[in-house]
Amino acid sequence: MSISIDPVDLACRLIACPSVTPATGAVFDVLEEALAGIGFAVHRFIAGDAPDGPVENLFAIRGSGAPHFAYAGHLDVVPPGAGWAGDPFTPQIRGDLLYGRGAVDMKGSIAAFVAAAARHADHPGTISLIITGDEEGPAVHGTVVLIEHMQAAGQIPDLCLVGEPTSVNRLGDMIKIGRRGSVNMWITVAGTQGHVAYPHLADNPIPALVRILSRIEAITLDEGTDWFQASNIEITDVEVGNPATNVIPAAAKARLSIRFNDLHSGEALAARIRAICEEESPRAALEAKISGEAFFTPPGAFSDMISAAITKHTGITPELSTTGGTSDARFLSKLCPVVEFGLLNATMHKLDEAVAVQDIAVLTDIFADIIEAALKRSKSILV
Amino acid sequence: MSISIDPVDLACRLIACPSVTPATGAVFDVLEEALAGIGFAVHRFIAGDAPDGPVENLFAIRGSGAPHFAYAGHLDVVPPGAGWAGDPFTPQIRGDLLYGRGAVDMKGSIAAFVAAAARHADHPGTISLIITGDEEGPAVHGTVVLIEHMQAAGQIPDLCLVGEPTSVNRLGDMIKIGRRGSVNMWITVAGTQGHVAYPHLADNPIPALVRILSRIEAITLDEGTDWFQASNIEITDVEVGNPATNVIPAAAKARLSIRFNDLHSGEALAARIRAICEEESPRAALEAKISGEAFFTPPGAFSDMISAAITKHTGITPELSTTGGTSDARFLSKLCPVVEFGLLNATMHKLDEAVAVQDIAVLTDIFADIIEAALKRSKSILV
Ligand SMILES: [Zn+2]
Ligand SMILES: [Zn+2]
Repeated sequence: MSISIDPVDLACRLIACPSVTPATGAVFDVLEEALAGIGFAVHRFIAGDAPDGPVENLFAIRGSGAPHFAYAGHLDVVPPGAGWAGDPFTPQIRGDLLYGRGAVDMKGSIAAFVAAAARHADHPGTISLIITGDEEGPAVHGTVVLIEHMQAAGQIPDLCLVGEPTSVNRLGDMIKIGRRGSVNMWITVAGTQGHVAYPHLADNPIPALVRILSRIEAITLDEGTDWFQASNIEITDVEVGNPATNVIPAAAKARLSIRFNDLHSGEALAARIRAICEEESPRAALEAKISGEAFFTPPGAFSDMISAAITKHTGITPELSTTGGTSDARFLSKLCPVVEFGLLNATMHKLDEAVAVQDIAVLTDIFADIIEAALKRSKSILV
Repeated sequence: MSISIDPVDLACRLIACPSVTPATGAVFDVLEEALAGIGFAVHRFIAGDAPDGPVENLFAIRGSGAPHFAYAGHLDVVPPGAGWAGDPFTPQIRGDLLYGRGAVDMKGSIAAFVAAAARHADHPGTISLIITGDEEGPAVHGTVVLIEHMQAAGQIPDLCLVGEPTSVNRLGDMIKIGRRGSVNMWITVAGTQGHVAYPHLADNPIPALVRILSRIEAITLDEGTDWFQASNIEITDVEVGNPATNVIPAAAKARLSIRFNDLHSGEALAARIRAICEEESPRAALEAKISGEAFFTPPGAFSDMISAAITKHTGITPELSTTGGTSDARFLSKLCPVVEFGLLNATMHKLDEAVAVQDIAVLTDIFADIIEAALKRSKSILV
């Protein structure tokens, strides 16, 4: 069997289904129909409750055995906001561009991958799609749940391509082989309230917080690596909230945001900052929330394969980058090597998000070459 | 002429006039009538507008020439609050106690002084009363305005007794020969907002604020003096107000409260902290508001005179103290030596404020002796 899929038409049909995070329903119906039509077994399931859910997740798989090549992405979109030239959920082609929320992030990319997969009806090994409705939100009921599903089914990919928009000025000028990790921390120092005229009866928590923050400011986490910029700590908030000029406050708080490369882990950083808090005050406490650990896929066979496909169809050699915020690659990188590549990110999350129609066609060609290259190699070469 | 005044009756009539800060009207009518009846020339004037005003001020003077002995006080009271056993503005004698808002702070004291002055109809020199309706509030339209009035009239006292409640456990156990000064400061560090993933595009104001606060925390202003406890700096608030974990904030603020002894001035302290701010960041700014400079009347002829009168009528020797918050003595001390002495402060500003009826009588006797001693001494001995 070989059914041709027009990626621009599929992108339009996905954009036409409003799917602000958390997404469920119609947009998944469109994708399921397309995938089922080209031989994929499609598993859909709902996770989570309001307000972060319900979230729909879709795992589609075709073929069997090694190598197993996966594509990961999301059908949810950020809210369109007011001020679009046209309706954000009515796809419109004007000039060379297709407009609509999700055009580049990342319904256009998903459509291109499905169209590419349609060209390879017969292939060795396994192709899968890992598609969530909760990437732009808290991401607790999305890819994490999909990974549990895949682990339970024993369907772990050998390689994973995340189709996020990584290109900057021209399609293919950048791919991501890593991302920094991110952890937020909240420091609270308890004190004993009192009057400024009688400080011996009170315990001002601010001096201990100042000592803690001074020590944190003095930290240099690293100088960066060959592939990552230096890890960075920012104190993003300090809060006492004491309206009275003559009162010593009862508590003082601060918040940190740390972006870190693969020399660190969120847990180790939390332990290090917690130790400083405990050394400076028995009444200081730390809470940490790890948004994502750093991931890094060292340049090699996988990135070479993607670069070769990009160069063949665009003539340019992509930069291998580790910049930018977090993505679901932070979860998928626990399963196998992950690289991110997709459309131009210039209009993502903005008004009048748009993709060049030609870019969808070229991306389809590139994805088709990547699928072919990935599936004809043996697992041992790939990783 | 010699008209006798019952200080308890006068205290009751003053308490019966509600006079929460800012005070005007009836309570001043009662006092004016009593003072006019014993030969005082009474000057009343209103200052200020809502919300801090209007405030009534009263300056009463009897006699002429040196020595000029003044009594200073206030007819305004703090709000009574809910939960009194009786109506706070209906004076009630139950057992040994007279209840009512202002009983000790300080209508009872004013009544005692007026009754004492009534006993000395003929005297050398000058007696005056400096009475405001704005001591418990912002104090901008009160004693400061009275001082301007006295300076314009050339009626500057040689000695001033402030009748605030200074006694702790027994009438006369403490007088105040000084008070610490107080200054509040606001530090603002400007920054440039940005995203935590791109710190080179932003300028986080928090590190500079932390450096400034670290240096302030390291300051020891002094170790105290023979008469004053050590000066003290408290950081009372830190405020950034940044709700977003991934945003570097645009500004950071802190607030200080400094209580200082007579080794310092508010202006010099502000200059010292401002210099630290400017050294640590070109984007740091300081605002200072001096609530009051420190005052100190070294132990000597004036405090000896008050102590002697107290000992004669109570058998105890008062402690000379410089503790507690600010009072209007901070303004009056610019004119002449000032000492504070009055009723027990245990119930001031509290529910069921009350004064022992007997204490009003004894205080009247003490005040009468102080007046006599103050006016029979020559000016040169007094200061
Ligand atoms: Zn995305
Ligand atoms: Zn008072």
